[in-house]
Amino acid sequence: MISQPRVVSRSTLKRLPLYLHLLEKLMDQGVENISCTQIAQEFDFDPTQVRKDLETTGAVGTARIGFRAATLVVKIKEFLGWDNAHDAFLVGAGNMGKALLGYKDFEKYGLNIVAAFDKDARKVGTRIFNREVLPLAKLPNLAGRMHINIGIVAVPAEYAQGVVDLMVGAGIRAIWNFAPAPLRIPEGVILENARLTQSLAVLTNNLTKVLRK
Amino acid sequence: MISQPRVVSRSTLKRLPLYLHLLEKLMDQGVENISCTQIAQEFDFDPTQVRKDLETTGAVGTARIGFRAATLVVKIKEFLGWDNAHDAFLVGAGNMGKALLGYKDFEKYGLNIVAAFDKDARKVGTRIFNREVLPLAKLPNLAGRMHINIGIVAVPAEYAQGVVDLMVGAGIRAIWNFAPAPLRIPEGVILENARLTQSLAVLTNNLTKVLRK
Repeated sequence: MISQPRVVSRSTLKRLPLYLHLLEKLMDQGVENISCTQIAQEFDFDPTQVRKDLETTGAVGTARIGFRAATLVVKIKEFLGWDNAHDAFLVGAGNMGKALLGYKDFEKYGLNIVAAFDKDARKVGTRIFNREVLPLAKLPNLAGRMHINIGIVAVPAEYAQGVVDLMVGAGIRAIWNFAPAPLRIPEGVILENARLTQSLAVLTNNLTKVLRK
Repeated sequence: MISQPRVVSRSTLKRLPLYLHLLEKLMDQGVENISCTQIAQEFDFDPTQVRKDLETTGAVGTARIGFRAATLVVKIKEFLGWDNAHDAFLVGAGNMGKALLGYKDFEKYGLNIVAAFDKDARKVGTRIFNREVLPLAKLPNLAGRMHINIGIVAVPAEYAQGVVDLMVGAGIRAIWNFAPAPLRIPEGVILENARLTQSLAVLTNNLTKVLRK
């Protein structure tokens, strides 16, 4: 019974998909129940942290037995909003756009990329993984008619703000940005940056430290 | 004078590339000096936080003038290990692998993907953005000979652990993982997960909250 959205940390939100991947793998192997300790061991996390994360979703475990894996999967998916498919538009049919269109796991996690857009006339009309590439100019009208809430930005940095403005103007509520550009969005719109260079920064800084030793 | 690697938070490491992108953009526009307040405004961050982040890199600002943009860029790049190119091997010449091979910004940030590997004989021998796809079996020998420190995993989840074991066995010190799989690595090896589904989780949970309102 979620009457009020719970406050949840970004770290918890990022760990929940890991638990979900693990649970799905274990269920494939016939596992029915799982404890926080088992999950914690798998990722080298603190069991108390795992328990807190799982309880955030409203899941309830039993002493000695732990959690029912199937129930936990449902609870995590509900909590992440992955139980209902979200339709999304993607802009930018370059390599990153193609990779995202071909990423099979997204549908499993409730993201349904229904169309791709590009301003390049040579790309318009082609099909990528069964989605037609449409002219960018058609986005506003289609987004409204199809009640699209999520816009994925996979264009070069210099075009990203323009694309976001177009999306926001078309009523899109959440932007998933793959362009390495700082973006401005109005209040009430959600922006999530999937910046690869940020992840690269953590990697290379750690590597540099190790190599200096 | 860095004699000792400084302890730095993951959040700082993730903000530094944002500052770098901004500084490079502003320098293109002829800007020479920049203050923490200006940077903070751009991203809606706290100026004190920005100052702390920048000082972590060893950069020193001047009262009223702020930081010299050019010096700041050098300091951030040094700190992130982006001043020296790191050669990397990529495994998995599917869509994600192709997107990464085509990602022009990486070289700017010191990541040089020198070769791609795949176990699919139909992909071996093809060229993707000027890099030949080599048979996976050749990785261990080549990694040793070329002193490769970074391995990029862009294979489906079920093959990821096998690829990581091969990389670690070949002396690779840092793994950048794009597969949605929990990976086991020995102590001393760095693992950075660039999991798209984690970023998606933050997006869809926030969107769900907004839509429930």
